[in-house]
Amino acid sequence: MASHSLVSSPHPLAPFSSHHHHHHLCLRHSPNLSTLPFPKPIKNKPNHSLRCAVSIEKEVPETERPFTFLRDSDDSSHSSSSSTSSVRARFETMIRAAQDSVCEAIEAVENGPKFKEDVWSRPGGGGGISRVLQDGNVFEKAGVNVSVVYGVMPPEAYRAAKGSASDQKPGPVPFFAAGVSSVLHPKNPFAPTLHFNYRYFETDAPKDVPGAPRQWWFGGGTDFTPAYIFEDDVKHFHSIQKQACDKFDPSFYPRFKKWCDDYFYIKHRDERRGLGGIFFDDLNDYDQEMLLKFSTECANSVVPAYIPIVEKRKDMEFTEQNKAWQQLRRGRYVEFNLVYDRGTTFGLKTGGRIESILVSLPLSARWEYDHKPEEGTEEWKLLDACINPKEWI
Amino acid sequence: MASHSLVSSPHPLAPFSSHHHHHHLCLRHSPNLSTLPFPKPIKNKPNHSLRCAVSIEKEVPETERPFTFLRDSDDSSHSSSSSTSSVRARFETMIRAAQDSVCEAIEAVENGPKFKEDVWSRPGGGGGISRVLQDGNVFEKAGVNVSVVYGVMPPEAYRAAKGSASDQKPGPVPFFAAGVSSVLHPKNPFAPTLHFNYRYFETDAPKDVPGAPRQWWFGGGTDFTPAYIFEDDVKHFHSIQKQACDKFDPSFYPRFKKWCDDYFYIKHRDERRGLGGIFFDDLNDYDQEMLLKFSTECANSVVPAYIPIVEKRKDMEFTEQNKAWQQLRRGRYVEFNLVYDRGTTFGLKTGGRIESILVSLPLSARWEYDHKPEEGTEEWKLLDACINPKEWI
Repeated sequence: MASHSLVSSPHPLAPFSSHHHHHHLCLRHSPNLSTLPFPKPIKNKPNHSLRCAVSIEKEVPETERPFTFLRDSDDSSHSSSSSTSSVRARFETMIRAAQDSVCEAIEAVENGPKFKEDVWSRPGGGGGISRVLQDGNVFEKAGVNVSVVYGVMPPEAYRAAKGSASDQKPGPVPFFAAGVSSVLHPKNPFAPTLHFNYRYFETDAPKDVPGAPRQWWFGGGTDFTPAYIFEDDVKHFHSIQKQACDKFDPSFYPRFKKWCDDYFYIKHRDERRGLGGIFFDDLNDYDQEMLLKFSTECANSVVPAYIPIVEKRKDMEFTEQNKAWQQLRRGRYVEFNLVYDRGTTFGLKTGGRIESILVSLPLSARWEYDHKPEEGTEEWKLLDACINPKEWI
Repeated sequence: MASHSLVSSPHPLAPFSSHHHHHHLCLRHSPNLSTLPFPKPIKNKPNHSLRCAVSIEKEVPETERPFTFLRDSDDSSHSSSSSTSSVRARFETMIRAAQDSVCEAIEAVENGPKFKEDVWSRPGGGGGISRVLQDGNVFEKAGVNVSVVYGVMPPEAYRAAKGSASDQKPGPVPFFAAGVSSVLHPKNPFAPTLHFNYRYFETDAPKDVPGAPRQWWFGGGTDFTPAYIFEDDVKHFHSIQKQACDKFDPSFYPRFKKWCDDYFYIKHRDERRGLGGIFFDDLNDYDQEMLLKFSTECANSVVPAYIPIVEKRKDMEFTEQNKAWQQLRRGRYVEFNLVYDRGTTFGLKTGGRIESILVSLPLSARWEYDHKPEEGTEEWKLLDACINPKEWI
């Protein structure tokens, strides 16, 4: 069965899922079928549904975690490092440390069950470590992945990224991307789901335009999705996010809090998938060293922001109705990830490793026809807060 | 809570979901985000995620089923009918009869639980009847909807439909669409899920080009999604589809069987969601009366093709493992509907009534990391048949 490979590849570094593609990605768009009201449709046949040719370098399983996934030329321990390659190396070190510390904290809560690890690499450079803990004592499904990717992006995207229309027609642009990505779904309906993702991206100059400037960006965020509101929990979670932000720029928390509410928006429901947190993307208009430190601070804040809440909620008694409501909210999580999340939808359409992409989905989810919580109930309060985002602190 | 209305509107007549829009639909495409590899992304903010302006005439709840949802001018009992309006009227009669007979058959199997009905209309004409039976004795969720829609499509779509590039720039094109749509999810993991949808579509001439030709199409299909293969069941189901097809054209079954395998393809899994059936779309290159009779025959074949199988399987004993596998396959159903199904994705993006659009989702679904059925098991056989579609008869 070709669709089931033993080989593991990364959770997509939303939106850097182009890391799956080593050769070329095209941006020629067929009309998006979903915005065509009707005939004559392009038949949704297998051969036609991938809109542009992509080719993916197959990942290779590794038996051990390598010291680094960087190419020798990027690794400051092997070569004289420019300050740019040094950010690559330090970002990899940071995300691997974040993966370790989050997994360690989860395993401590689990008190027995351990993560299953898949390590893989690509012949052309890059690789990753996927860790999943499923059906544990406390977590229904916990996935924590890191990956490092060397890819090639179409010149159109590079020009768009530069934000300037150029007359020169450069060739494909090599890029580097690295990130950590995680979704943690607890079993207890009073314990919230957590997602976080921190990523760093760089382009090289196009090969045929060696003088062109490099580009770099940081992106990421941490967000919080409970099925029930405990105000203390939400305040604690947001306070830790704010503390991390405030160390760098007082404008960060309000701006990234709003960005998070805007990004995790399920348009067809007119509600957010949860109670937010922080989210930012394409951040490059600050000092690069500062943003590296900021991303590190955010990643380091995951454990103190989340684990105390899980500890407090994991053993609470609950009813079947509580569980059914959690399952309904998990359905919303599925809707957001499959319909809107850029990393997921791009990964699905371009042939990334499906099990890694969809590790973000809950173990189980539920859809009831026309379910409406009664006004004033705890379920209603959660839904109201998802429809009308609040300032929690 | 604005997102929860008491008013019911139709299950989308995939791919005619433009029926939600009375004023205008635009086809101006922003680049599809999901095909953009990465920065600078358009921020996924609420105000930006609807790619083109649509306006929807709000549906109104009705306390009784009207005799017809047709406008007076289309209703042959009120006006002298052209043969075209007569197809509209006869198609509505057919889909309402199909809804009645399928619901009656389901209620007979349920032996107690009844469908909940929502009737609605739109001031400008059209309306529908939604019926849902949830958490019954036999069915987890059964939805059977009919709708009749008067809408306006952008002239670009009309020209595309005509298949000829014209220099004239006609205005919006009025259209008529009607259909029956249903998804039936039983509880027992040995009883298959069934989906069927039959629809008819007509354009009027553009208002400012009164001499331009009308267009019409038929579309639809019936497909079968078991979690376990009982060869007798699959043969029975496909035989009834073939019988219906063969009454009209010996080429229909092989052609529509393949079309079905191609349409219900989950590209990112490289597997179909189920064991197929028949599917056709944009059918207009046959005699119109013949296609009306053919659609009627297909709709009438739903009960004999499906109900005997449910009767045979509904009380079979099963294990927790059987149920978990059914839930995993339901996860695939969710993936297909949210990621690929044209009616669903279009409906979600353009603001159709969410509860009607998503009634097709199962009550519950499951995603396990990297689940691989052992070769040779019953689960493996089903998966193999979804990966490699078979000729069942």
